This record gives sequence, structure tokens and C-alpha cells, in this order.
Amino acid sequence: MGVRGAVNLLLITPEDLVEPDIAEIGGRRFRHVMEVLKLEERSGCCRAGMLGGRVGRAELLSVDHDAERMRLRLYWTAEPPPPLPAILVAALPRPKTFRKVLHAAVTLGVKHLIFIHAFKVDRSYWSSPVIGEKALREELLPALEQAGDTVLPVVEFRKRFKPFVEDEFPALCTGRRTLVAHPGATEFCTPSAEPLMLCIGPEGGFTEYEVALLCANGARAVTLGPRILRTEVAVPVLLARLCG
Amino acid sequence: MGVRGAVNLLLITPEDLVEPDIAEIGGRRFRHVMEVLKLEERSGCCRAGMLGGRVGRAELLSVDHDAERMRLRLYWTAEPPPPLPAILVAALPRPKTFRKVLHAAVTLGVKHLIFIHAFKVDRSYWSSPVIGEKALREELLPALEQAGDTVLPVVEFRKRFKPFVEDEFPALCTGRRTLVAHPGATEFCTPSAEPLMLCIGPEGGFTEYEVALLCANGARAVTLGPRILRTEVAVPVLLARLCG
Repeated sequence: MGVRGAVNLLLITPEDLVEPDIAEIGGRRFRHVMEVLKLEERSGCCRAGMLGGRVGRAELLSVDHDAERMRLRLYWTAEPPPPLPAILVAALPRPKTFRKVLHAAVTLGVKHLIFIHAFKVDRSYWSSPVIGEKALREELLPALEQAGDTVLPVVEFRKRFKPFVEDEFPALCTGRRTLVAHPGATEFCTPSAEPLMLCIGPEGGFTEYEVALLCANGARAVTLGPRILRTEVAVPVLLARLCG
Repeated sequence: MGVRGAVNLLLITPEDLVEPDIAEIGGRRFRHVMEVLKLEERSGCCRAGMLGGRVGRAELLSVDHDAERMRLRLYWTAEPPPPLPAILVAALPRPKTFRKVLHAAVTLGVKHLIFIHAFKVDRSYWSSPVIGEKALREELLPALEQAGDTVLPVVEFRKRFKPFVEDEFPALCTGRRTLVAHPGATEFCTPSAEPLMLCIGPEGGFTEYEVALLCANGARAVTLGPRILRTEVAVPVLLARLCG
């Protein structure tokens, strides 16, 4: 099992490269290599990956203790883990839950997340700083480092439910099994290797109108069973149960 | 999907009963009924359950606003949701993660949890107040209320790894598929309706010695796949994937 906030893979970005196979890094990653991994100069190695690219290892070449910078030689040897063939459409949760849901979905390999408005989404959630570009990146990179992945997901936000469902949703459904988790449904969810689009309602659920609109535009309602789960538990459970 | 911290079922305990079908409650539950459910006297109803017993509904009979107490008439009509046929054995996580793992497992219906020591478990976790009896009950009741369940799980703690695995574990394995999640394993986990015992390591994993001892005493090592997940994500994923 992974370590909380674990860097199971040191992420290198193109801006870190000083030569094609040599990176210079500082800051949070410098401290991690020094204090957690405790790599030694010229002999220490750790798992690494190029953001958006391959994975392999990084060898510590030299450390500038004063500047808190280090140089690493990079060896890319393999592809990152395969993505989960699933789009997650979720009613925007409260900020704390948003971060947990985002982390769970991204570590599980979801590469396309769409957070949408719904009747029971508190309007104030749309002004939370957690959905800003910078905060988002600060969630996404550690999630990739946790999972050992390099490929950033696409994270989108749609503040208007009806235009999204009527104008964009049908095209996204094409070629995908599209399911909406709904306590009122009678069909139980089953695993399948087919690409998936999973729609998750807000606290208190989608309204009957919202479920009907999703279903009229390509979704099928499924139940999770008799137990009601927090969104951050329901997302990993549904993804694990549905992606066969 | 459920509401965060949602009371999807008002839990009544035997101590609340003033008559066989009438309960008197105050405190947190009083405020929930007044402020969240906003039930009205003599007409308001909500889902309710008897701790350890059946579920049904509660009708608000009368409110004593000064004393912040209310009387409810109880109607039990159904059994609580079926338990998950799984024992969870987990290396004791850090306190914050412990609460998340406990919540996820209990809302999913696990009725027997055993938290154990392991080489990579920080000794300080064993003195955390979160594993005390009172704190535990404060986690368990809201988890039942979230899930709509009434049956408290058994939560046990074993501070010594080897005696637990050698002396208690083999008997627990009897008649159960017993799996230990281990990144080094090659066997992938598959769903089955068989009763399960799932063993989850600490941050950084069980040591090779620990995995070998678990396997010598009845467990089989399985991998989660190439992605490394936080414990609170791995637990719902594995339970969903393994309990068919």
C-alpha cells in the first residue's frame, strides 16, 4: 500500500532539463530526495518519470547544499501505468471532498474529470480557491507521484447543468457505457472492460429531473446497493466495481 | 450519493427507550432532527434504526425546546443492509488515515476489523486517542448513520504482529479466501462471493518477512496493479473488487 503523500515516483518536468538526460531540481523535490529518500551523491537512485512521458529512474549526480539544488541523470525505461478507460462526471463537491475525490480518481488513473453544477451543489463551491488552476496543479502532481504515473488528467468545470448535459454529454457518451449512480435505481452495477463514463451526484443526490435529463441524453441509472456512501468512498468503489 | 457526515438513518439505542416503541433523545440527534431534517411535531417522519436491530422510521411526537429533548414513536419494518462478508486486517495507520479507513470499511459493511502492528507502523500510533473506546464509538455511530446500518462492527487491536499471525490468524482464515495486498505479488485480485479476509500493510508496505509469515499462515499475496494507492483509497477499491 502506498504511503500518504508518498512520492513513489519523482516527477521531472521539461523545464527541469539542463541537458536531454540531466535535470536540475530544488524546493519540495530537493527536500524529499535529501530527507525522505536520503539518496547519496553518485550512488543514490530513485524511481522517476517525465511529466507526460516515460518512467524509469534518476541517479543523483551532485548536490548544491547552499542553493538547495541537485542534478540528476535520468534513465527512461518504461511506459507509465495504463490509464483507466473512464470519464468521471461529478457534481462539484465541497472543497475538502473535492480534493479527496480528485486524488482518488487521479491515483486510480482517470484521465478526464468534469465537475458540474447540480441543483444541490452549493453555489459557494464555485468560488473556492481549490478549483483554481494553481491549486489544482498542487493536487494533481502529488496524485501522479503517489500513483507512479506521469500523465496529467484533463480537469474541466461546467457551471451550468442543462447546457452541459444537452450539448456536450451526448458526444461524450458515444462508444462508452454511461452510468449515473442513483440510489433510486434498481439496476445493479456490473464490471465491464468497455470504456466508461460515470456520473456522480452531489450530497443528497441528483434530483429526479437531473437523473431524467442525464438518462434522456445517454446515461443509465444504476444503484450502488442499500448502503449510502460518502462521495470520496463511492468514487473508488464504483470505479473499482465498474472497470472490469 | 450520500451526504458528508449525513445522518441517513437516525440511530436509536436501547437506553433511549421510555416505552417499547417510544424513544426520547437529545443532544446531537435532537439538533439534527430540528435543524437539518426540520421535522414538524405530530407529522414529521424520518428513517431510523435500532442500534443492533431493525430499521424503519421515527415519527416526531413532541418537542421540549427548553430541555432540548424530543419524543419519537418508532416503527421497525425491515432488516438493516446485509453485512459485507469480509474481515479487514490492517496495519495500524496514522490517526488521520485510521479514521478514514475505519469510516470507509464500516460504511461498506465490514463487521470485523483488526488493526495490527507491523515493522513500518510508527510506535506512536498506538498511543493515539483515536483508538480509544470513546473516540472509536464517535467514529462508528456516524459511519452506521451514513450507511443506513444499525450493526456495530467488532474492532480489535493487536500490538504484536508475530503472535497474532501465528496464534490467531490461521483460525480466522478457515473457510475464507485470505489475501494480503502486496505490490510485489504477481497474482491479480479477482471478485468472488466467498467470505474474505483482506490484509493491508502500513505506509511503505509489509516487509518481505511479514508477507512470508502471513502467507505461511494461510494468506495469499495479490497485487493491486501498477498504481500505488493511499490506504484510504486502497481499502474501498480492494473491498469493491474482491467482494463479488
